[in-house]
Amino acid sequence: MIKITLPDGSIREFEGGITPLEVAKSISDGLARNTISAVVNDKQVEVSTPIVTDSTLQLLTWNDDLGKKAFWHSSAHLLAQAILAYYPHAKLTIGPPIEHGFYYDVDFGDESLSEKDFEKIEKKMLENAKKNSTFSLYSVSKSEALKIYADNPYKTELIENLEDGSITFCTHDDFTDLCRGGHIPSTGIVKAVKILNAAGAYWRGDENNAQLTRVYGISFPKQKDLTEYLERLEEAKRRDHRKLGKELGLFTFSEKVGAGLPLWLPKGTTLRKKLENFLSDAQKKGGYEFVMTPHIGNIELYKTSGHYEKYGADSFQPIKTPHEGEEFLLKPMNCPHHCEVYKAHQWSYKDLPKRYAEFGTVYRYEQSGELHGLTRVRGFTQDDAHLFCTPDQLLAEFEKVIDLVLYVFKSLGFEDFVAQVSLRDKENRAKYIGSEENWEKAENAIITAAKNKGLNTILEYGEAAFYGPKLDFMVKDALGRSWQLGTIQVDYNLPERFDLTYVGSDNEKHRPIMIHRAPFGSMERFIAILIENTAGNFPLWLSPEQYIILPISEKYTDYAKKVSQLLENHDICGLIDERNEKTGKKIRDAELNKIPFMLVIGENEKTNGTVSVRKRGEGDLGVMSVEDFINLFQKEAQH
Amino acid sequence: MIKITLPDGSIREFEGGITPLEVAKSISDGLARNTISAVVNDKQVEVSTPIVTDSTLQLLTWNDDLGKKAFWHSSAHLLAQAILAYYPHAKLTIGPPIEHGFYYDVDFGDESLSEKDFEKIEKKMLENAKKNSTFSLYSVSKSEALKIYADNPYKTELIENLEDGSITFCTHDDFTDLCRGGHIPSTGIVKAVKILNAAGAYWRGDENNAQLTRVYGISFPKQKDLTEYLERLEEAKRRDHRKLGKELGLFTFSEKVGAGLPLWLPKGTTLRKKLENFLSDAQKKGGYEFVMTPHIGNIELYKTSGHYEKYGADSFQPIKTPHEGEEFLLKPMNCPHHCEVYKAHQWSYKDLPKRYAEFGTVYRYEQSGELHGLTRVRGFTQDDAHLFCTPDQLLAEFEKVIDLVLYVFKSLGFEDFVAQVSLRDKENRAKYIGSEENWEKAENAIITAAKNKGLNTILEYGEAAFYGPKLDFMVKDALGRSWQLGTIQVDYNLPERFDLTYVGSDNEKHRPIMIHRAPFGSMERFIAILIENTAGNFPLWLSPEQYIILPISEKYTDYAKKVSQLLENHDICGLIDERNEKTGKKIRDAELNKIPFMLVIGENEKTNGTVSVRKRGEGDLGVMSVEDFINLFQKEAQH
Repeated sequence: MIKITLPDGSIREFEGGITPLEVAKSISDGLARNTISAVVNDKQVEVSTPIVTDSTLQLLTWNDDLGKKAFWHSSAHLLAQAILAYYPHAKLTIGPPIEHGFYYDVDFGDESLSEKDFEKIEKKMLENAKKNSTFSLYSVSKSEALKIYADNPYKTELIENLEDGSITFCTHDDFTDLCRGGHIPSTGIVKAVKILNAAGAYWRGDENNAQLTRVYGISFPKQKDLTEYLERLEEAKRRDHRKLGKELGLFTFSEKVGAGLPLWLPKGTTLRKKLENFLSDAQKKGGYEFVMTPHIGNIELYKTSGHYEKYGADSFQPIKTPHEGEEFLLKPMNCPHHCEVYKAHQWSYKDLPKRYAEFGTVYRYEQSGELHGLTRVRGFTQDDAHLFCTPDQLLAEFEKVIDLVLYVFKSLGFEDFVAQVSLRDKENRAKYIGSEENWEKAENAIITAAKNKGLNTILEYGEAAFYGPKLDFMVKDALGRSWQLGTIQVDYNLPERFDLTYVGSDNEKHRPIMIHRAPFGSMERFIAILIENTAGNFPLWLSPEQYIILPISEKYTDYAKKVSQLLENHDICGLIDERNEKTGKKIRDAELNKIPFMLVIGENEKTNGTVSVRKRGEGDLGVMSVEDFINLFQKEAQH
Repeated sequence: MIKITLPDGSIREFEGGITPLEVAKSISDGLARNTISAVVNDKQVEVSTPIVTDSTLQLLTWNDDLGKKAFWHSSAHLLAQAILAYYPHAKLTIGPPIEHGFYYDVDFGDESLSEKDFEKIEKKMLENAKKNSTFSLYSVSKSEALKIYADNPYKTELIENLEDGSITFCTHDDFTDLCRGGHIPSTGIVKAVKILNAAGAYWRGDENNAQLTRVYGISFPKQKDLTEYLERLEEAKRRDHRKLGKELGLFTFSEKVGAGLPLWLPKGTTLRKKLENFLSDAQKKGGYEFVMTPHIGNIELYKTSGHYEKYGADSFQPIKTPHEGEEFLLKPMNCPHHCEVYKAHQWSYKDLPKRYAEFGTVYRYEQSGELHGLTRVRGFTQDDAHLFCTPDQLLAEFEKVIDLVLYVFKSLGFEDFVAQVSLRDKENRAKYIGSEENWEKAENAIITAAKNKGLNTILEYGEAAFYGPKLDFMVKDALGRSWQLGTIQVDYNLPERFDLTYVGSDNEKHRPIMIHRAPFGSMERFIAILIENTAGNFPLWLSPEQYIILPISEKYTDYAKKVSQLLENHDICGLIDERNEKTGKKIRDAELNKIPFMLVIGENEKTNGTVSVRKRGEGDLGVMSVEDFINLFQKEAQH
């Protein structure tokens, strides 16, 4: 008899050799039907793998990330099998599951795969899947494995790097592949398949190696899931911030300025400034003081902070100078500068906390292939702040920061999130700097603050940085995608490295604790998420163009200007479409530009001092006085 | 008989050999009395130098810059004479006039000069001056000159670099020096002398050479002038922005961040943001659109613009990257980025002018010895904008820019300025790019705009850049010092280099004209000037702390907070002095911090809902209701 411990802590006894599927059956038939993979003692295995000693067991369904991983790993086998059916000379390399689906890198030799071939591959995969074959894993000696792949230099290279005795193959139906295992029970549960894309990829990611074709696919246990996924994919394409950013004239890139360095166009600049002003106001109310620091710093600054060691080799290289041998770095982080601001004065405990905020731009070199619109850039502006406080102030400060982040998220329509708290590894406390007492205080402060603020919290042991625990906000967008936004990080390291002090009530010098925090993280990335979350239909208060006046002919331009002036006087910003176009065309263009309010004016409106109001997404709101429109606007613009 | 042309264009005939002083006498005795130097055919000479051919002649008095130059050059001789009287073994090197006064670099050998020696030198100089000696210039052969200075390696080096036949000496009283001439008629007109400073200096500015002592002095024709000068110097010291910046907590420098890279502290950041907001609002009203561009750009961008060629070798060196061989530069100028913003769209003539504004930070490497507070830094933010217009729009745009600059200057208390217009060299029009027609149009536009706006204008022929004419505003501060502030520059070059176009009414592509303009020039330098001009007593609307509430005991803190909240609601920003200090001390500290309004509160104020108001520089304004104070404040804060 062996003891099996389930995730809820309960322990059950079974005969040795029982399989995960049999354990599932012992719990319920329903669970057994849905179990597609399992984790035994931290290793993912097939549901048919016998368990022979006392073990922990986690049963996985499609709803678990690891369940999907097994499903997509198995689907990659189906993909390879189908490819070989049509391209028998193709050479397989590797085919892993990824976040959404799977791929297989294939050397098609003289042949090639194009979009028109996708359908036949999908059909073949489903045809094979229906046979409901099981996956069987077996060991092969190194010499035998090499013999089997004598024709395939890629698999040969893989095998050569494996230890003899650890090499396994997997067979389903008529197809066999070098494989470490972790499959679903049988192919029949793969009910829907889509080949998404075929793109070039180098063997082992090295451009000096052979070029392969990476075939991307996704699969689901129900056709409905695939349909929904493809719809979400289409919607994501429609909302792609790179596409909308161009269409709405928010930002652009220029090859000459350089990849990954956005140029903010007037509308984008207005949007960004509005966001910055909104955050500034919120922070000023929260007792933050704004500072401004340069985008570069002497290399010594980053040697002191440790950032040079961390980012030096892989990022933008030091900036040399023609005289005096000084070297500067593009700022990789704002914190060293803020430490120097703190040091400009000897503070007393009565002065703390000091809260220095800055929209501080930092630079990280990314290879051009890794850049992506505004979400992955080479220079970005953090909505950064650093708080310097005493250990006793930590809880209160942490709570205030959470309040600020919640207020900001709510104002911008992000209401679905969890707080991920990164704590020390319980087993290995030696690797963290700072005293046991301070860590206890800080970890408790974060957990208590998150609890007091009613956050849905996940504790992650071992995820803390060596210099302090932190809290990350994981936010879901309108498409159900998860983004890491706000971060609140405790830091015992920099106060030490910069020898920061305050004079305590005992008249002695003490180390302050530093908190790094950024509700958005990066203005660029946040705006990308905001564009995709709203599909460009920004909240009214944030819209760079809140209204457009559409005079039905040039006779009404003067009245349009009068209305515009009245609105500007109430800080409502927008424009007049003075083009010589039909009103229908002007309305369509305004809709494409996602302008919240269209004010059509003609003879009646001019005579009566009114505007005919159309609202984005709602259509005609009827005729009203300019004053009534201003009231309506101000009510809707509240946040 | 020879013809002498005077600056007013009038031509007079004299016998050959007449001296400038005699010409002055022929005009009036008063002029002759005041004439201390002259320029004959563009060369500055003594008033006793005979004129032998037809010549142009400018008579110089103390009020002319060149008159002062002769005065101070001659005073340097008096300084050297006095030094030798006390330090006969000292070796003289060079002693030129400078903007304010003169210096002499001296090798004192084993001896040295300290502040306590200044008085005896001054006395000796005046004693010698009173002898009213004349300066007589005579030629010396190279070999003879070398013999005279056999003991002086510095003069020897100077003589060795001179052509034989061009070497002159000058004697007055018992003192002789190697000298090219340009003296005042006699020493007697030097009535007041001050040795200002003695500092180390390397021979020929090279740190590998011998170290000399640079003795700075200044002299005047009247004691009163010296007294006034010293008072202004004291006042300038009191107003030094480096001193006030520290005292008022506006900015700081950190060795670790790097020299010449200011860190803006909270109060300085508030001041700067207020200035930026003020300028932003003014520009938005003027039809400008704001953009944001990165602080770096690919080196190709600056090769296209020509800035790499211009700044490359002497400035911050290119930033290399770990992969892909890309190189970036810290932005030396914002214009290339704005050209790329313009290029993001194909504009029609109907869309022009486009006016792109940005508070754009640029970087220039300066040697550490040349850095000075905020006026000479290594990174500064321009209140920059670039206008792209058609040739026909140039005049109107130029006038609008002048309006903006005048509005800005007036709001900040700079009312005394001249407009310096830089035009082509009439003699050499080939060296300018752009068509004759466009240059004519642009020069006329600037001159006409300046005239239409009633500017006090100086035309400077030959001062235009090769790429276009410009207008600079030279502004006088409260100490009478002149600063170059706003610049408006026409540019035909960058539109060409970046191949910028717009589609004209003829449906053909045309080149737009570009205007660069910055009312302040650099935010850092402007704030330095503003600090010195106001002595830190900023205009009320701009004050980073507009009021301070002084509760006479902690019993009134709650009422203080209530008042503060009311003021914040009216966008009046300030703070509460909650320290446990006497009210007198709090008032003195508030005065040191140059806070415009002090609101003292105690029992009476709390009971009656009033505040007792003290105004900076004016003292007690009496007790008033909070509402009355808000009204008073808002009236005074208008700009």
